[in-house]
Amino acid sequence: MIKYPDGREYSPNKTKQKLTKFEISISSSNRGMSFEEDINISNEYYSTHGVALITKRPTPINVVHVDYTNGPHITDAYFEQQSTTDYNGIYREKYIDFEAKSTKSKTSFPLANISHHQIEHLKEVVKYGGIGFFIINFEKYDETYILSAEQLISFMQLNKRKSIPYQYFKEKAMSVTHGYYPRLYYLEAVDELFF
Amino acid sequence: MIKYPDGREYSPNKTKQKLTKFEISISSSNRGMSFEEDINISNEYYSTHGVALITKRPTPINVVHVDYTNGPHITDAYFEQQSTTDYNGIYREKYIDFEAKSTKSKTSFPLANISHHQIEHLKEVVKYGGIGFFIINFEKYDETYILSAEQLISFMQLNKRKSIPYQYFKEKAMSVTHGYYPRLYYLEAVDELFF
Repeated sequence: MIKYPDGREYSPNKTKQKLTKFEISISSSNRGMSFEEDINISNEYYSTHGVALITKRPTPINVVHVDYTNGPHITDAYFEQQSTTDYNGIYREKYIDFEAKSTKSKTSFPLANISHHQIEHLKEVVKYGGIGFFIINFEKYDETYILSAEQLISFMQLNKRKSIPYQYFKEKAMSVTHGYYPRLYYLEAVDELFF
Repeated sequence: MIKYPDGREYSPNKTKQKLTKFEISISSSNRGMSFEEDINISNEYYSTHGVALITKRPTPINVVHVDYTNGPHITDAYFEQQSTTDYNGIYREKYIDFEAKSTKSKTSFPLANISHHQIEHLKEVVKYGGIGFFIINFEKYDETYILSAEQLISFMQLNKRKSIPYQYFKEKAMSVTHGYYPRLYYLEAVDELFF
């Protein structure tokens, strides 16, 4: 298993790759599967059904050395911090842009999970008339919420807390319905929150 | 110098990194600088001036092995083909998405430079109401053109040619004004073509 510097599991970009029925059934039934994979499968579903076009930005990697002896082979490289967000695309003729995070905590979502760059990027998205949000998964409860960029920014301005309480999500964020395939009907929550 | 499998020069993602005045002056005066870097600097300019938010998708890399001995260090990885396009973002409240290519040819732009995936992706962009195009640079003439996704698709349907003649660009594509900083005023050409 390959891990990012922050400990999350790395998985190659599957967004545009068609999944077989077998893969879908495996992944839907596998609760240990990553939140990122769930979102990728939802995006695949939305694209196949003509609902939205949303893609995952590849993980930025700083390549230091490539060996060309037998075709290009990267032998020395480092993960870089994503300076924007994980996902963007078009939905209902609007630009949408969001960051996905999951937490093992039962009580709160730690704000240390979100970088300053990502908040600045989403502020810009909102300024230009796009839809910007965070999609946050509480692993222990198997619950997913959407928090608009405005909500998160306002929370940070009004509070000195280093985390957002779970209760805040229950009361203020938009809950995402979980299903079999796709696992996450997150655009339905986007409809309620933004349209 | 690190190269992609197709021979283009690889440069680490600088889109969201602020360039110093020194870097800008170096890059603007350096005609050997890559077309990609020119676009990244234009995007930086547009973002700083509140015109548009356009980012480059990082190069997708398939990571095979990471050594964790002294922090995560990638020791085995391969470049993957970008299944979408190089750039996307928001401009005038519209989703925009495009692919940048440059050619050393004086007579035509070879269609082999564009992957089937990229054309399919841009077809989808148009279907969802976004703006999709190709920005193409003729190195030998130091000229840049914007060709809408629709134009390119229609050219491919009507012609059996494996390249688009330079003359076609002169007559049918939108010319991009070159400047000092930014080097490419490409959104002004987008205005003319799409708004």
